[in-house]
Amino acid sequence: MSIQNHAQDAQDRYFMMLAIEQAKQGLYTTRPNPAVGCVIVQAGEVVGQGFHPKAGEPHAEVFALKEAGMKAVGATAYVTLEPCSHTGRTPPCALGLINAGIKRVVIAGLDPNPQVAGRGITLLEQASIEVIVGVLTAQAEALNRGFLKAMRTQMPYVRLKIATSLDGRTAMASGESKWITSAAAREDVQKLRAQSGAIITGSETVIADDPQLNVRSSQLGVPPEQVPAPIVVVLDRRQRLAHSPESSHQLCRRPNTLYWREDDLTALLKNLVSEHRCYDVLVEAGASVAGSFLSQQLVDKLIVYQAPCLLGAQAKPMVEFSPLSLAEQLRFSVSSHERVGSDLKLTLLPL
Amino acid sequence: MSIQNHAQDAQDRYFMMLAIEQAKQGLYTTRPNPAVGCVIVQAGEVVGQGFHPKAGEPHAEVFALKEAGMKAVGATAYVTLEPCSHTGRTPPCALGLINAGIKRVVIAGLDPNPQVAGRGITLLEQASIEVIVGVLTAQAEALNRGFLKAMRTQMPYVRLKIATSLDGRTAMASGESKWITSAAAREDVQKLRAQSGAIITGSETVIADDPQLNVRSSQLGVPPEQVPAPIVVVLDRRQRLAHSPESSHQLCRRPNTLYWREDDLTALLKNLVSEHRCYDVLVEAGASVAGSFLSQQLVDKLIVYQAPCLLGAQAKPMVEFSPLSLAEQLRFSVSSHERVGSDLKLTLLPL
Repeated sequence: MSIQNHAQDAQDRYFMMLAIEQAKQGLYTTRPNPAVGCVIVQAGEVVGQGFHPKAGEPHAEVFALKEAGMKAVGATAYVTLEPCSHTGRTPPCALGLINAGIKRVVIAGLDPNPQVAGRGITLLEQASIEVIVGVLTAQAEALNRGFLKAMRTQMPYVRLKIATSLDGRTAMASGESKWITSAAAREDVQKLRAQSGAIITGSETVIADDPQLNVRSSQLGVPPEQVPAPIVVVLDRRQRLAHSPESSHQLCRRPNTLYWREDDLTALLKNLVSEHRCYDVLVEAGASVAGSFLSQQLVDKLIVYQAPCLLGAQAKPMVEFSPLSLAEQLRFSVSSHERVGSDLKLTLLPL
Repeated sequence: MSIQNHAQDAQDRYFMMLAIEQAKQGLYTTRPNPAVGCVIVQAGEVVGQGFHPKAGEPHAEVFALKEAGMKAVGATAYVTLEPCSHTGRTPPCALGLINAGIKRVVIAGLDPNPQVAGRGITLLEQASIEVIVGVLTAQAEALNRGFLKAMRTQMPYVRLKIATSLDGRTAMASGESKWITSAAAREDVQKLRAQSGAIITGSETVIADDPQLNVRSSQLGVPPEQVPAPIVVVLDRRQRLAHSPESSHQLCRRPNTLYWREDDLTALLKNLVSEHRCYDVLVEAGASVAGSFLSQQLVDKLIVYQAPCLLGAQAKPMVEFSPLSLAEQLRFSVSSHERVGSDLKLTLLPL
């Protein structure tokens, strides 16, 4: 295989971009599988494209090759993730590409899944197919943060979402808190939930706000019922909550709400990967839970929806943790800042 | 005069943009005068341009007409502010345009200065010059917020600057506070100071931080010594500070530091306009002074430099004011958000 890091051909980048657009169509529906797209190009023309829509259904390559038919012979295949080499619920895609007569395969990034991990490429190369790896890797990996991190580390990718005022407050001292951020910001949170295998919240939040924490948006590009429902984990050390069809809390009436009674958040996250195949985890909780995840350095991405308002110095803080000096502050880099409705959405990466 | 609000000619907008670029060159040096630019166009070609550099020196039109010479005859003049009609330290510019043979004058906005206020236009029209008003008005007015507001209301344009963490904190509970925002953010504050006739701070800030609050940047496009030094007003109700060449506080050693011993901030602002011709005022103080200006609705623009860090729930709040309910919160619209160094700069307009 050859690695194109610097002299990436513009054409390869263009068709890989199309393959990434394909992959995005499965973003909210493939869990726990990664979102993957494939484009087949014959003589500079797209002759087939496809994406993996859902676990249990065929992989992206199968759809693209089917559309291409005989035009796949001698063609180049662009795939956003290394084609699989193992027989799972579907036959290995590397073999599919070989059998279809593909001459050249361009891959955005390797699949760290121990069942694949380079073996897909080996199969292709053994069949004398030219393999290029490393085209638009970062853009392709951004679609599958959780899957890739979990395969590499057995820990999920953790997003922490906080809605706050400009002065870092989430509610009045009295507890009054509704509608600090705009409807557009709350709609945007639906995308975060739809990407997540699990949502973690705290018993305090359940008792105070009785949230649904479900995916219900009609603006995801797919109907919400096609999105695998994230499981909800309630941090409940003090055992204040439990499943009951008669519970006054919506979450506690649901059978797929889990309760974590232990202190150890790292153990919870590992458990979500190993037992539940939850690779993308969203924390939506109060200041105390947010502070625990942040100060234990368990957060991969912090997403702040900031309403342009001031609630004053008596209002409730957005993160409960108490560094003793500036040296103990938590620092981030700003990954993006954008307007969402009347609010700002900041995404931040821990330093 | 005719008003072009909708069908503004693209050519008029283009040359007015050039006139605005001229005006910007005086942004930090004309105080208390407004920044004004002028471009003379003959047969689609710029034949003269100029800007008002400094109070006491000629107005923009004089420089532009001088450069144009005889080419001004029959030309169009683009001016970012209505040409003056009164003889001050310089003769009236309206007459200058008439005497030079200008045929058409395009003006971004009227001068609300009671000594002008439409009389410049009357003079031009009496000389049968075609006058167009209203081209790129908003862009031109943005250069002279303070001058225009003061002429209209006898109150200055007040900018409140706050540097804060992501969770709305300015310092640790211990008071430890240096370097929360980046050097780039502090450099950006130099532009705010250079635009201001007065900087207001609090005695607490002087005692705690001993700030200089001066203009010292070499990155303003003009040497800092050409920028009229803003006066500094220390809010000092409890009379804790006074001028003394031996003071341990840098500001108190300066003769042009003023002390405001009263409660009434509106009276102070009016006084800054009427007694000191300070039309742009920058508030750089602590949470308590910021809270007073904000809750008394004396702030025209809030500028927040937000460092991407969390200081925790015990750290000091950015604004001290205590609304009792969400209904009493202070709301803003986001005017702009941009990255400055590693920080975010938000500008917000009170709703």
